[in-house]
Amino acid sequence: MSETLFSAAKYFETQLPPPNLEQDVSRVRSFVARHAQEGRKVVLVTSGGTTVPLELNVVRFLDNFSAGTRGATSAEYFLEAGYAVIFMHRQFSLQPFSRHYSHSTHPFLDFLEVDPADTDGHQISVTTSEQAQLLNVLRTYKKVHQTGVLHTLSFVTVNDYLWLLRAVSQELSVLGRNALFYLAAAVSDFFLPRQKMSEHKIQSGKGSLHIEMDQVPKILKPLLETDPDLLIPKSRTALSRYGHQVVIGNDLHRRKYEVVFVSPIKSTAISLDDTEPSNFNEMWIRIDLQGDPSHEIEQDIVAELVTRHRAWIRDAKTP
Amino acid sequence: MSETLFSAAKYFETQLPPPNLEQDVSRVRSFVARHAQEGRKVVLVTSGGTTVPLELNVVRFLDNFSAGTRGATSAEYFLEAGYAVIFMHRQFSLQPFSRHYSHSTHPFLDFLEVDPADTDGHQISVTTSEQAQLLNVLRTYKKVHQTGVLHTLSFVTVNDYLWLLRAVSQELSVLGRNALFYLAAAVSDFFLPRQKMSEHKIQSGKGSLHIEMDQVPKILKPLLETDPDLLIPKSRTALSRYGHQVVIGNDLHRRKYEVVFVSPIKSTAISLDDTEPSNFNEMWIRIDLQGDPSHEIEQDIVAELVTRHRAWIRDAKTP
Repeated sequence: MSETLFSAAKYFETQLPPPNLEQDVSRVRSFVARHAQEGRKVVLVTSGGTTVPLELNVVRFLDNFSAGTRGATSAEYFLEAGYAVIFMHRQFSLQPFSRHYSHSTHPFLDFLEVDPADTDGHQISVTTSEQAQLLNVLRTYKKVHQTGVLHTLSFVTVNDYLWLLRAVSQELSVLGRNALFYLAAAVSDFFLPRQKMSEHKIQSGKGSLHIEMDQVPKILKPLLETDPDLLIPKSRTALSRYGHQVVIGNDLHRRKYEVVFVSPIKSTAISLDDTEPSNFNEMWIRIDLQGDPSHEIEQDIVAELVTRHRAWIRDAKTP
Repeated sequence: MSETLFSAAKYFETQLPPPNLEQDVSRVRSFVARHAQEGRKVVLVTSGGTTVPLELNVVRFLDNFSAGTRGATSAEYFLEAGYAVIFMHRQFSLQPFSRHYSHSTHPFLDFLEVDPADTDGHQISVTTSEQAQLLNVLRTYKKVHQTGVLHTLSFVTVNDYLWLLRAVSQELSVLGRNALFYLAAAVSDFFLPRQKMSEHKIQSGKGSLHIEMDQVPKILKPLLETDPDLLIPKSRTALSRYGHQVVIGNDLHRRKYEVVFVSPIKSTAISLDDTEPSNFNEMWIRIDLQGDPSHEIEQDIVAELVTRHRAWIRDAKTP
């Protein structure tokens, strides 16, 4: 444990903070202060992958796969549950609300129409079949912005992420048990210390490329796992190592249909289909979709967490 | 040269094609056939970075920095110049037209408004200040789709890219000099042969990470360079090695203001500002922006290429 702490301390001693850290933190501070005053619970949602630059003038980097769907979707359900949300995401990863209109899969230009006959200024209109969903998304989006319950900030590298996470965590500490950490970002296990980076692009034409990286210090580490047999043992190790209340694990290929809540006491699987969850689970919650194909598992993840969070706050008040 | 060819041949013998290659190629074939019949010139624009997966169940990968701005922007100007465009881009990188409405920098939800008083069905309207630009983008977008002059296909890994590029190039060969290759993608110099990949995520906790990669065979290689002194010598080497007619080089930090056209005969710099281009240039074209801050250098790049392409086609017809 002391070795772990030393290595985190050494990390922040030797690696430089991102240039806009102070500005980012001061905005988070105001956001937290306002919601603390209004008695609102605040969740930090991290989302998307982190990069490990291989050069100071970044051309190449190591990356972790993550479009940011889990984080962006969960953020919407936390807002719906009355939380104020700090959405800390990888630049260009999906964001709450706009995630419904990915330029690749559901481009908004496809459902806007130009009406040449209309002369009253309403020359652009929305395709009928898309109006209901867009109205729904748009109304929520506007309300969230008007009430100021969503604060967004972004990172690119694992170094940005680590500095931001540490600073934002410190700001959230004033909230006590009203703060919740939902770390859905896919964080690199390795980094290349800036002292080892070359200033310019590594020249090719000299045979094969060798990269040697250092391990990222274990400050707080989310879990993303592709080998189902490793999932729960690794979650338990993470729990005892980092002092989380719950680790939410998922198999990469089943992540939209099944997750596992691993706590020190028990593990619970939540699933949207009939596939029996892997071993080790003491409980299995099978969600009835009631014929709704657009049901998202994040709704159930957030509902479960909100219940547990409420109990956790209540426990503190019980003498 | 024979070593290079052998190594490309060996690459395609040992690495697997992407699963949807045949379908992608047959669509490109129809697109090319139609435009060949209609006598239209066709440009292949590649755009965005390529990844090098480190695992078969991809969680981590090496990536090249590229949002895809150069490719997406140039594609619009090629369409404007009357070309049919095959836009082969990295999944989730910027695309023509929607690039104007990045979810991060210019989110479209911000300029749509909900009008509660309006009962005739036009409940969603566009903010006045955004109407003119959106109308312009939307009209061009609809026209391009109606006339079928833009064909889009995407890649993720450097392996996808190499297989697609080879196949699309073969399809374009029927066009003779009416085909143009505009390779703006940032392609990895290295790859990890599938024979060396581990099936699952590389486990951390075992000290530092070592990666050893092989060089990507030199089929066709675009140029992205951060060290200004290397730019022109490397462009000349590329020209003699790959038989391109022109290499367009840019310094990473100056890419929006200056590019250099390097041909076997001479090199020409095009710039939007007063900064004197680096040495080696026999010609310097200074673009007068005429007070338009939204002027994009891709307009000038494409104009220069269209002129050269026309001359190249004319030369073939001269006895």
